[in-house]
Parts: sequence; C-alpha cells; structure tokens
Amino acid sequence: MKLICEGLDLSDAVLKVIRATATRTPNPILEGIKLHASEDSLTLSATDLEIYIEKIIPADVKIAGDVVVPGKFFADFVKKLSNEQIELTLTPQNTLKIKYTDSEGFLQCLSSEEFPAAREISAPDTITIKKSELKEQIEKTIFSVAVDDARPILKGCLFEIENNTMTSVALDGYRLAMVKTEIESSTDKLNFIVPARSLSEISKLIDADEETIDILIGQNQLLINDGSVKILTRLLEGEFINYRQVIPNGNTTTILINKTQLEDGLERASLLARMDKNNLVRFDIRDRVLTLTSASNIGNVTENITISLEGKDLSIAFNARYLSDCMHTINDDFIKINFSSPIAPCTICSAEQEDKYLYLILPVRIVD
Amino acid sequence: MKLICEGLDLSDAVLKVIRATATRTPNPILEGIKLHASEDSLTLSATDLEIYIEKIIPADVKIAGDVVVPGKFFADFVKKLSNEQIELTLTPQNTLKIKYTDSEGFLQCLSSEEFPAAREISAPDTITIKKSELKEQIEKTIFSVAVDDARPILKGCLFEIENNTMTSVALDGYRLAMVKTEIESSTDKLNFIVPARSLSEISKLIDADEETIDILIGQNQLLINDGSVKILTRLLEGEFINYRQVIPNGNTTTILINKTQLEDGLERASLLARMDKNNLVRFDIRDRVLTLTSASNIGNVTENITISLEGKDLSIAFNARYLSDCMHTINDDFIKINFSSPIAPCTICSAEQEDKYLYLILPVRIVD
Repeated sequence: MKLICEGLDLSDAVLKVIRATATRTPNPILEGIKLHASEDSLTLSATDLEIYIEKIIPADVKIAGDVVVPGKFFADFVKKLSNEQIELTLTPQNTLKIKYTDSEGFLQCLSSEEFPAAREISAPDTITIKKSELKEQIEKTIFSVAVDDARPILKGCLFEIENNTMTSVALDGYRLAMVKTEIESSTDKLNFIVPARSLSEISKLIDADEETIDILIGQNQLLINDGSVKILTRLLEGEFINYRQVIPNGNTTTILINKTQLEDGLERASLLARMDKNNLVRFDIRDRVLTLTSASNIGNVTENITISLEGKDLSIAFNARYLSDCMHTINDDFIKINFSSPIAPCTICSAEQEDKYLYLILPVRIVD
Repeated sequence: MKLICEGLDLSDAVLKVIRATATRTPNPILEGIKLHASEDSLTLSATDLEIYIEKIIPADVKIAGDVVVPGKFFADFVKKLSNEQIELTLTPQNTLKIKYTDSEGFLQCLSSEEFPAAREISAPDTITIKKSELKEQIEKTIFSVAVDDARPILKGCLFEIENNTMTSVALDGYRLAMVKTEIESSTDKLNFIVPARSLSEISKLIDADEETIDILIGQNQLLINDGSVKILTRLLEGEFINYRQVIPNGNTTTILINKTQLEDGLERASLLARMDKNNLVRFDIRDRVLTLTSASNIGNVTENITISLEGKDLSIAFNARYLSDCMHTINDDFIKINFSSPIAPCTICSAEQEDKYLYLILPVRIVD
C-alpha cells in the first residue's frame, strides 16, 4: 500500500471513524482503524462489533492495499499533521511509514485479515427524515435510556414507524420519554430498537441541517449514509416493554407553567436536594402557585412559581434530576404537567402541541 | 445583618473570593465566606490561612453585621441568581435568609467570631508593575515550581528585586525557569518567596491590561490591591537554593531554531515517548539539522528541523514534557539553545533578547 493524501482530509476522517473503535477490549483489532487504498481513494473504517463507521477520502494511490493501524495513536498523530501533505507507505514488515515534510514516523500495524467486515443489508426498508429532526428526536429521548444491564433491551430506544410518523421511546423504570416526527417511509408499519451508544454516535456525526437523510433498516441492522460517512449499527433483539400501558389515561390535576421558571427553580432547589441521595424536590400545587421546596441539613429553598391550574390541589415529590433532564431538552415556552395522585406518575407535554412529545416521571413517596 | 444588593455584583464577588477557601480542611470555617455589611457596602472575604481574598460590593445596608456562609453552596446558589435583586437577612438562629423575586432560601451559617482576621502589613516595601507584565512573569515561571513536599521552599517562586528589575525564579530539581521584568521599586534590594498556589490565584484575579498595580511586601506577607479585590498572601520563610550556581557558564554547542517547528516536532515525538514513563526524546545535532527521535514498542518518529549551529555536533536526550512546558510559554519566533555536554543541562533563551528569560533543563543520560 502506498498513497499521498491531504492531512486535513485524513485527520477529519480519522476523528470520525475512531468513534466506532472499542475501548478496553481483549481484541486489539477492535481498537484499530482499517485503511483500504484502491483507485483514487482511501477508505477508513472502525468497528466495536456493535457500530461500524466508514469514511472515504480522496487519495493519490500508488499501490493499492489494506492495513489496520492502532486507532488512538494514529488519531493523535494525524491530528498534529493537518496542514501537511502526507505519504503513507506500508513496508514489508507490516509497518506503516507516515512521511510529512522532512520528517517521518513508523507505526507497527496489524493485518487487515482479522478485521471484521461490515455485513451487507439485504432488502431493507427505507425511512427518509430531515437530518435536524433525526438529531432532535435522538437528543430528546436518549437521556431516558436505562444505563444498567438489568434489562438489556432498555439500553436502546424503540422506534415505531406507522402512517409516516416515527415515534421514539426510551424508558428506564423511573421515567419515560416519547417523541414523534413526520417522516417518509417505504413501509406502513415497522418497529426496531437501536442501542443508545449507536444513536449517540449518529447524532454526533450527522449535521443539524435541513437536508434529508435515508435510514435503511434490514434484518438486524440499520444503515445511515450521510455523504461520505457510512454508519452501520446492530439492532437490539427482543420485545420492548409495552410502554403504552405505563402512560396514565385520566388525570385530576393539570398545570400550565413557564418552562424556564420551572427549570431555574429546580436548579436552585436541587443544589440542596443534591446533597441527599434521593435528590428530592417537593411540589405543592395550590390555587395559582406551584411551591417547590427542598431541604438538607445546611438549609432549605422555597420557590414560588405562578401557574394556571385545572383540577385539584396536590402535593407530590420527585427526583429533581429526572425533571431537570426533561427541562433541558424542551424548547417550548410553556408546558403542561398532568398529575393524578401523589403516588402516580406525572406526564409532561408541550402546551401548544400536546402530541409532539411526552415525558413521564415516577414520583417519590412523601413521608410527612 | 440585613441588606439588598445586585445578584450580578454578589455572584461576581463570591466567585472571586471563593478561590481562597480551603478544601479538605478539618476546620469548616475555612470553607466559608465571611459577609460583613456596614454603611453602604458588603465585604466578602475568604482565607485558607495561606491566601486571603477580599472583595467589596455596593449594598443597601439596613442592619450592619457579620456572618460566615458555607462557601461552595453559597457560590453555587448565587451563581443562579445573577439577574435578580437579592435581599440577605440574618435571623436570630444564625440562618441567612436569601430572598429573590417571590422565592427564598435559608442557609445555616457559622459565627464570624471564629473567622481568621487578615493581618495588617506594617512598613511595607512597594513595587509597581504593569498588570500584564506581572501576569506574564507568573505564567512563565510557575510551571517549574516543585510539586512534591521534599523541599517545601521550592513550592514557591523566588522574586529578587534589584536596580528596578524583578527576577522571578522557580526550580524543581529537573529544570529551572527565570524571567526578568523592569519595575518601579521603593527599595534597592529585596528578596521574597511567594507560594505557587497564591501566585496562580493572583494571576487569575488580575486583568491582563496595561495599567500598573502596586505590590506591597511586608515582614512575611504580600498584598496586592486591584481596585476592589484585595489579595493577601503569606510568604515562604527560609533560604531559596542558590540558583546561580546551577546555571552553566560555558557551552560548546549553540543552536538557533524556529520555536514553532521545535514545539510541533516535540508534540508528535512525545506522542510515542509518552507511552514510556521517562517520556524520552533524543536530540541529534549535526550540521544544519536537529533530528528528534522517539520510539516505543508500537513505532518510532523521526523529525528533522533545520537549525543554525555554532560549535560541535552533539547527541543528548530530554524528558519531552519539560521541553514542551517551556515552548508553551515562549512567544518568540526563534530561540537559542546552549549545550555543553550530553550530561550537562541545556539552557534556552530568546534569540533576540538573551537576558529576558532563561530556561534550564537537565538531560536524561542516553544508553546507546
């Protein structure tokens, strides 16, 4: 293998594909980046067996070939070479010579034979969505994904496609996030579960612009092709929880509240709440005022926020972090919060467009 | 105590004085911020017994008084109130009531009686220096201060005042940094040693502008008064090392080199060098070229940099980090490096103005 490419192209590509490399793996090939030179391009790829990322850059290829370089070191090195033209040459000893200006580095490599190949997607369904909307959909649900391994299926987000609407759902046993977006779909009905880690990388790699992007869904895989970056991820297998039965139907108390006021109040209250493990903030809903209170051994905070109330007065308590997490992802000025009892989950939605998103949070029982 | 002040003033002041609070101390009062309200101002102060920082802000004081608030919590809380007008009231139970808009917090406080008072400086010498130059002088030497406790005196920078020149020196047994600046001084000759921690806070608190500032040096203390922020620090007592005898007189090899090329080359070479504990980069000086090499089990890097050489060829090795630390603080395009033997320290100075600064670095013995 021998080629010349621009340092800027190379470092940009390396920093994208390195996101797919595995860390703390017993298999060193999964920490590597595969270089494949042929015709007039260099293809870089990496995978941890769950996600696979590939990027192609232009290159003046003298001799075609393949090799796997140590990912982290190669990334750190080419990052510091982005202004130079770089010549990469594979020596017979499987060492990659990196030549730039008058200087050079030699890097011990691995054979590309062991590198896992990306599987092809056969007969996929296709969804077309605006890039900015895909990113938003991911960001507004991913924080509710379970982090522990108790139920592995909850470490992914469920995507439901029906009537050209995509609903994504994440839940962790204490809270649930659900967001809907209109899409174009090649199929009427389709469900799949994407690992949160892959969603997080997808959200980072695609631009937040108004262009559309195709998502291809095959047997156990999903493929996104954003220009020269290709992202392939394994899907989680199994049944997702029937989340619909968790969402309460009736409610006895509904408040309309300024989102920023609630967010700021929660932040101050949770400074104290955070000192306790349960991070508890109490809500007292009376008349036209929501009173947030939190207390610890060093003091207490009482925040009064004007609301519009429908239904009965109520006292209820929450883990402040779960509420703050929702507030950070909501862009609306006003939100609606529905309650049915001090021990039943509350639901949060937009005041203007109630079915755009729904957050559900379990309360913490108050001992008076 | 009862007063009203602007949230922006209060949060700015709290974030400045909190730098002086102690962390991990058995004495909780040293984690606190003292509030002192009198006439038309609120004075905030904090100290860890080494450094003392004080800031005064305007306030509408209804009842004068003192109290010590828990520093970290108070800072986090007022940071989130910077747009509001804040009313602070001390209750008879020694609780501080923080009132803002319709909401309020109560904070358990400590009595100010236990709070250590700042000692007065008597009959001080005065030095006058441009703020930007003081900051630069600190930043260009502080990184060479010793971090371990083997010789406590080396955890400070020595300042020598003589003939309206201030020389600051820091050394840690492996390297030395020395910088000179012209100043105005009320005394002909004066030496003092300032703890690095205090210098770091001084450098962060003063602005990098062209205004001058007065430094007052008393028996064991130094005082800087930058408008409404007052910083008082203890000086280290004892004899500093006679650093002059460490600096070599003659040299057999002098190179003139582009600083950025050396910095970039060192960065790439030390990517590999860093994998070994000793972080070793080898210098081979021949003809008009400096060759930097580093190697580890995954590869090696060879950087060739054009130089202008006076004297003999030489091979020598250094801990790359010590060299990189110097390069980061130097602004000159070209530097001079003087060597006398592969086992003697090298010295680095500006190519244009040789006595502006001097860095000295001990080599690592090469085993061929």
